[in-house]
Amino acid sequence: MFSKSRVECPILRKKIMSADEAVSFLQDRHTVGMSGFTGAGYPKSIPAALVKKAKALKELGKEFRINLWTGASTAPELDGVLAEVDGINMRLPYQSDPVCRQQINEGSMDYVDMHLSEVSQYAWSGFLGKLDVAVIEVAGIHADGRIIPSSSVGNNKTWVEQADLVILEVNDQQSIKLEGMHDIYYGTALPPHRKPILINTPADRIGEQYLDIPLEKIVAVVETSAPDRNSAFALPDEISTQIADNIIDFFAHEIKQGRLPKELLPLQSGVGNIPNAVLSGLEKGGYKNLTAYTEVIQDGMLHMLKSGTLSVASATAFSLSPTALDDLNENIDFYREKIILRQQDISNHPEIVRRLGIIAMNGLIEADIYGNVNSTHIMGSRIMNGIGGSGDFARNGSLSIFMTPSTAKNGAISAIVPMASHVDHTEHDVKVIVTEQGLADLRGLSPRQRAKVIIEKCAHPMYKDRLTDYYERACASKRGMHTPHILNEALSWHESYETTGKM
Amino acid sequence: MFSKSRVECPILRKKIMSADEAVSFLQDRHTVGMSGFTGAGYPKSIPAALVKKAKALKELGKEFRINLWTGASTAPELDGVLAEVDGINMRLPYQSDPVCRQQINEGSMDYVDMHLSEVSQYAWSGFLGKLDVAVIEVAGIHADGRIIPSSSVGNNKTWVEQADLVILEVNDQQSIKLEGMHDIYYGTALPPHRKPILINTPADRIGEQYLDIPLEKIVAVVETSAPDRNSAFALPDEISTQIADNIIDFFAHEIKQGRLPKELLPLQSGVGNIPNAVLSGLEKGGYKNLTAYTEVIQDGMLHMLKSGTLSVASATAFSLSPTALDDLNENIDFYREKIILRQQDISNHPEIVRRLGIIAMNGLIEADIYGNVNSTHIMGSRIMNGIGGSGDFARNGSLSIFMTPSTAKNGAISAIVPMASHVDHTEHDVKVIVTEQGLADLRGLSPRQRAKVIIEKCAHPMYKDRLTDYYERACASKRGMHTPHILNEALSWHESYETTGKM
Ligand SMILES: CC(C)(COP(=O)(O)OP(=O)(O)OC[C@H]1O[C@@H](n2cnc3c(N)ncnc32)[C@H](O)[C@@H]1OP(=O)(O)O)[C@@H](O)C(=O)NCCC(=O)NCCS
Ligand SMILES: CC(C)(COP(=O)(O)OP(=O)(O)OC[C@H]1O[C@@H](n2cnc3c(N)ncnc32)[C@H](O)[C@@H]1OP(=O)(O)O)[C@@H](O)C(=O)NCCC(=O)NCCS
Repeated sequence: MFSKSRVECPILRKKIMSADEAVSFLQDRHTVGMSGFTGAGYPKSIPAALVKKAKALKELGKEFRINLWTGASTAPELDGVLAEVDGINMRLPYQSDPVCRQQINEGSMDYVDMHLSEVSQYAWSGFLGKLDVAVIEVAGIHADGRIIPSSSVGNNKTWVEQADLVILEVNDQQSIKLEGMHDIYYGTALPPHRKPILINTPADRIGEQYLDIPLEKIVAVVETSAPDRNSAFALPDEISTQIADNIIDFFAHEIKQGRLPKELLPLQSGVGNIPNAVLSGLEKGGYKNLTAYTEVIQDGMLHMLKSGTLSVASATAFSLSPTALDDLNENIDFYREKIILRQQDISNHPEIVRRLGIIAMNGLIEADIYGNVNSTHIMGSRIMNGIGGSGDFARNGSLSIFMTPSTAKNGAISAIVPMASHVDHTEHDVKVIVTEQGLADLRGLSPRQRAKVIIEKCAHPMYKDRLTDYYERACASKRGMHTPHILNEALSWHESYETTGKM
Repeated sequence: MFSKSRVECPILRKKIMSADEAVSFLQDRHTVGMSGFTGAGYPKSIPAALVKKAKALKELGKEFRINLWTGASTAPELDGVLAEVDGINMRLPYQSDPVCRQQINEGSMDYVDMHLSEVSQYAWSGFLGKLDVAVIEVAGIHADGRIIPSSSVGNNKTWVEQADLVILEVNDQQSIKLEGMHDIYYGTALPPHRKPILINTPADRIGEQYLDIPLEKIVAVVETSAPDRNSAFALPDEISTQIADNIIDFFAHEIKQGRLPKELLPLQSGVGNIPNAVLSGLEKGGYKNLTAYTEVIQDGMLHMLKSGTLSVASATAFSLSPTALDDLNENIDFYREKIILRQQDISNHPEIVRRLGIIAMNGLIEADIYGNVNSTHIMGSRIMNGIGGSGDFARNGSLSIFMTPSTAKNGAISAIVPMASHVDHTEHDVKVIVTEQGLADLRGLSPRQRAKVIIEKCAHPMYKDRLTDYYERACASKRGMHTPHILNEALSWHESYETTGKM
């Protein structure tokens, strides 16, 4: 099997063509659903061909812009290059690309920032409009047409079902041994036809190993050979390590109080240095048989699976450094028993998140003294990335932890502010806030009680007195003691940053 | 059965005592879980006895304050009278009482405002602290100890399981024919032991008809005879009717587009005039076989069940006018086949809300031009009621509709503001905003696209130009075009209201 080509299906072999030929199926203002989740499994050659096409059309005085739907963030070779030629009209549901970000913030690209779990149901229900073409990276196609998904699943199942036409990229740099790692669930439906989703532990498999695509929809197959965007992780710095230590201490305390089992509960964690530091802290802490039900498998999780700290990891994508990718490929038979890749409407599904009682750990941009969290906007107006899956997990999980260094931009910005300039996670959903300064456990507290612990435990010493002063003057104003605020000062820290570069 | 007394169980008959005697089990700083949800099924005599006790202790120079947990709001005879003697130290998870509200806003009562679906899991997991006593109204006790719940279920199952001691009030003004209407589910668990909850339609019964309480926990049984707080509903006014019409038109449009089935999807609706107007609009519109999966059964739903507009209604409580209550009691054999009362962790459960694809219709206090909704705070600081179940339904349902008159206080306040002074439902969760002016369908729109429809469709003509002006100047400031704001003006409308009494 797969001796030379990764395309063994004779019908599809006849549809093999170059990327430049394949993009003839893509027209100006088409809505295109592409594969790709956190830099894994995105198409490697169609985007560049689209850029060529857009440039050529521009020279003829014609526009070429698409509406681009993906799983989540992709890579410079997709979002970046397309944005550079003004090729993206509308983008959903998540991005983290510097060029996209700039265009969104300049107003030339529309961005619809959605909960990742909800994308497929809204595409299915039809109000996002028609999906013209799906462009999906896969790892191989068997003779009988069974399709082996790539290093991410994301929304691929939905895109191929919803699109009029499908273009496949078959990438021979994806390990062919990914086969068997995926679990594509075909039991979803729109209400009133929904049934319980029978996942009771992160290890449960409920679907198929292959992606099911009607052959007649597939209009082009493009062979590629290019790695995912695998960037090396920095070693945890002092601040990340301190944040991680605070979380590890908190877990130990909760176990002691009998409020968490010694295997904790299934972990979800965002991508980045702090989550990686938390994972390595758990490993050092001697935990065994933990589980992960999350979006992305990053370096730390592979270590943990090897050491037995983690017994199983369920996700929708990989996000690995080159070294970790080598490890995955070398030991893939071991990892295949312990890793499950699902579509993102299942990896992030409210029903499962609630049932499993997930511990959600996500980053934040700023939190206010009452526990409202902003994870998307800089100074109230500029998008950073998007809400991603953080809301799926924070709202429905059993414990929602938000983590951040207590300051940003070398101390010019306090992550704890009087009033958040944008709210993505409300006071009702934020259970724990943690910085390198300490951890605030907000469960069961009223807003004023929260203000005291957040200022005391989380704020940087540099900003503590000013926060306390704001809080005390807000109380003294007697305008309302449930959530005391001084309206004409509440956003003044942000305003000051915009005008003076310092809060 | 129940010839004279509603307490047929001989063991419990021996525990019958007066409310004044029963309150000897309640001490200063006790945490007390009481029954009661939206004015239904709250204890009728213990609160007054507590007030007497508190007053007597006060004369001796002693304090008497409890932490009070309930299902949701109760009645003046519970929240009101206890607050008046400063008898409530901490309150959760929801209230709508004027005296409580005043004390919370003055700072003398702590209020923990929680999603109603989450209360029981957080009580179970132990971090809300110990529950000392449960005080639960029931409709009757059979000879073998089976307990017939009252007109609301709320958190009663959790309170009796968690409390050290249980006091029952047996109220002979609750129809004894409520027997068989309840569905108390005993399959809930803390993670990692949770299993799927097998409700696939609002009509599904998965539990028991009776409340299971270990007899040895019950220390007192108090016989009462008093009606629930059943207030008459005002007839829908012009504004409510117009809001309802806008929603009904929207449903018709969605059905035409094939995005909603002709029986719609299970309806959740808040309590009040606008929801009642929507219900009567559906009835007039000729809808048949709709279903409701909601918190509260109000007058409109009884009519709809009778006419066949509604085939089944699942809720956790009644909230009826005296006339509707008479109708319920006279036709209870008919209604018992069509009404199911569940505990609130099931009526509001994220898993079920998502599976059923509920259409959530809730009120709002203010929305900003980008679709962030405030349902709890007046001018950023003063609590109105609380988030209640609105977040349970809005986040996980298939369609979240928020409704409000476009102005409040005779036009002095615009319900549409530049920036919400508090956020309970984020831009990611608010799908439709509707006022008497029109309906804004926000699905699939970017923030700036939303601003245009919200101002155009929802704002009162009196405020439209100023909102457009704010929006355009925010765009012109070029600080960030994803969500344009002018930081030092964003909350100025609220500030102006506080100082001048007008926005
Ligand atoms: C919130 C979030 C942006 C934090 O990112 P991170 O990489 O963990 O944290 P960092 O501290 O490195 O911050 C990232 C950037 O935001 C900036 N930043 C952080 N806090 C800031 C603040 N309060 N004000 C302004 N900028 C801030 C940092 O300076 C940094 O900018 P730079 O790259 O120009 O130096 C990120 O976690 C996110 O996008 N979250 C939402 C989606 C999510 O939670 N995904 C997980 C599940 S899908
Ligand atoms: C938001 C909410 C308060 C609206 O209440 P309502 O009774 O539907 O609407 P009303 O227009 O009568 O407003 C209620 C009060 O708020 C005031 N109000 C409304 N909008 C206001 C605003 N923007 N600023 C200040 N006050 C406002 C009204 O004037 C009125 O006050 P009054 O009683 O002193 O006259 C109510 O729906 C609520 O508590 N929602 C949260 C819980 C929930 O959604 N429950 C349903 C599922 S549990």
